[in-house]
Amino acid sequence: MSSPLHFYFDFSSPYGYLAAMKIDELAKKYSRQVEWHPILLGVIFKATGTIPLVNVPLKGEYSKHDLIRTARFHQIPFKLPENFPISTHNTARAMLCLANEQGKENAVKFAKAAYRAYFVDGINIGETEHIAQIATKLGFDGDSLTNKMASQEIKDQLKMEVESAQKQGVFGSPFVINDNEPFWGFDRFDQIEALLKNGQI
Amino acid sequence: MSSPLHFYFDFSSPYGYLAAMKIDELAKKYSRQVEWHPILLGVIFKATGTIPLVNVPLKGEYSKHDLIRTARFHQIPFKLPENFPISTHNTARAMLCLANEQGKENAVKFAKAAYRAYFVDGINIGETEHIAQIATKLGFDGDSLTNKMASQEIKDQLKMEVESAQKQGVFGSPFVINDNEPFWGFDRFDQIEALLKNGQI
Repeated sequence: MSSPLHFYFDFSSPYGYLAAMKIDELAKKYSRQVEWHPILLGVIFKATGTIPLVNVPLKGEYSKHDLIRTARFHQIPFKLPENFPISTHNTARAMLCLANEQGKENAVKFAKAAYRAYFVDGINIGETEHIAQIATKLGFDGDSLTNKMASQEIKDQLKMEVESAQKQGVFGSPFVINDNEPFWGFDRFDQIEALLKNGQI
Repeated sequence: MSSPLHFYFDFSSPYGYLAAMKIDELAKKYSRQVEWHPILLGVIFKATGTIPLVNVPLKGEYSKHDLIRTARFHQIPFKLPENFPISTHNTARAMLCLANEQGKENAVKFAKAAYRAYFVDGINIGETEHIAQIATKLGFDGDSLTNKMASQEIKDQLKMEVESAQKQGVFGSPFVINDNEPFWGFDRFDQIEALLKNGQI
């Protein structure tokens, strides 16, 4: 059996959201699994001296326009949240906590619901109150989740996850690694598909 | 008749090279013309506080890998030059000088030949000696060109071209503007094609 595609994303990354809406479908087409890895771009950007795209002069304004157009081009619902970007360590911890307790599949369900809540409905998914609501809607115990995700164990687990991503060379979101072949950006999905289809690129 | 696509590029930009090898073909498919604008990323990056992609930690190494893979994916010959990046104000001036004296079509022929010389054969196209050789091969007077392109008029013309690009919001290479709709990056050619095909995006 083939190894899974590794999908790295920050919950505050709009191109990460677009990728998240498409990656399972893409992998399924070629009978592949996806391993979802929430990361924190804030930590990673510090290491590389990068600033968030939207804060770069000219490029920032353009990227907002490009995001809306790119979402429309791929027929993905999208609305740039008023509160953007946000800190998403709570959201990432919630996902890890769910993966530990309810399995990876349920954690991915939460990730997709959280991404949609933020990039379609404008809900601040960095806040525990909204995290609890999203989890509850999916049938989990939201209050128990937000309690548990604040534990030192989960904090350490996220820290390790981010460090592990950095060791793999991850420097942005979305980032996909397939058998050591790295792809940065939603606009590399055509090349990922070619690789999955042909076994080489 | 439709207005032309405006194509902005730096002669030292590898993704600009990839775009240059494809843009005329794309435009022709939809009966559109392309207006080629050489710019200087060095000047533009100063204004936006950007550093060249290949100099960014992690991202730089990745981008070299991505370039080679992207060129292969689009079946465009490509070899990252040993001397990279280079200063290309001479190359841009030569192109403007040729456009003035031999017409835009010949200037584009020169631009494509220069790009290929750099990104296929590894020739430093920032040096006047090589610029003269490329022009001579195309049937122009290379020595006369390199004399004329050093004039204050051509220097001023390039300065104005770069300022004009900045006023249009150009912040990178390649950059395409179609009737006020801006596209940054070779990876937006799919969206440019959709716009040319459907009249909207």
